[in-house]
Amino acid sequence: MNDVALTTHPTKELFIKMVVDAWNHSTNQVTKLFDELSDEQIKADAAPGRNSGIYLLGHLTAVTDRMLPLLDLGERSYPQLDKPFLATPDKSGQEIPSVQELKQYWKDVNAKLSAGIATLAPDDWFAKHTAVSAEEFAKEPHRNKLNLVINRTNHQSTHYGQLIYLKPKN
Amino acid sequence: MNDVALTTHPTKELFIKMVVDAWNHSTNQVTKLFDELSDEQIKADAAPGRNSGIYLLGHLTAVTDRMLPLLDLGERSYPQLDKPFLATPDKSGQEIPSVQELKQYWKDVNAKLSAGIATLAPDDWFAKHTAVSAEEFAKEPHRNKLNLVINRTNHQSTHYGQLIYLKPKN
Repeated sequence: MNDVALTTHPTKELFIKMVVDAWNHSTNQVTKLFDELSDEQIKADAAPGRNSGIYLLGHLTAVTDRMLPLLDLGERSYPQLDKPFLATPDKSGQEIPSVQELKQYWKDVNAKLSAGIATLAPDDWFAKHTAVSAEEFAKEPHRNKLNLVINRTNHQSTHYGQLIYLKPKN
Repeated sequence: MNDVALTTHPTKELFIKMVVDAWNHSTNQVTKLFDELSDEQIKADAAPGRNSGIYLLGHLTAVTDRMLPLLDLGERSYPQLDKPFLATPDKSGQEIPSVQELKQYWKDVNAKLSAGIATLAPDDWFAKHTAVSAEEFAKEPHRNKLNLVINRTNHQSTHYGQLIYLKPKN
């Protein structure tokens, strides 16, 4: 059975599917949660004194937006999100978009990333991502595009665990 | 550069390294956090009305313990954790081990899992995990042992995001 499966699904394609499926699963969880929450719930803090949902929404949107150039899939769309959502902590008095605007940006960056991912050939995934130099990559070939997606999935899951706390308890 | 790297590090081994590294990174994050927290901090709830740290510690320990038979790496050590930490929610009046006992179990199951992982040959990772039937696996060859580790890493990262809230704010 194993041999049949491995022959019909070459290892490389299988691996890519596993990693991209896990990314999509995590992203869909986050999207579903934001769709279920009201704007007021998203503006609340995940726990007392911790990040607000709107900060985490902006943060995750900025991180996904930055994956486009890192995976060599084109320009990012919202560089203005870096200052309020990556360079500075929550509640530091930055001007930020509304919840509705950020939810639109979130859907937008994910649609662009999915479209870009669909254009990658299997071997492209094993090329270096753009934040690693050719010299580093020769020594550390695991620092490829697929590894970036593995790491970003875990980052996103970490924040998803916090975002769940925005939902009222059953 | 890519060609050299891919020749010296065959794709399969590279992928396994990426996935196992991500698992180890997540596990080390959780271990470091539990080592930094006092027993009292671990007994507290991650957020008001949410799971306690001790429940999440028991839950993650049970999940890792169950990975041993799922990956066909031997018997699990602590089946008694399933009832209080998987089958029933927090604060349901179950008798549970102390924080110190659970921290020891956590280190123990992770040491056993690491030792087991070290014995797996590259092709073993592409075999089915034990919770999937041969028939299902023939149709869905991505449901292999490595995929189980990818999914468990994301599960663990989700709870890590919640456990961070046990730490006092800076």
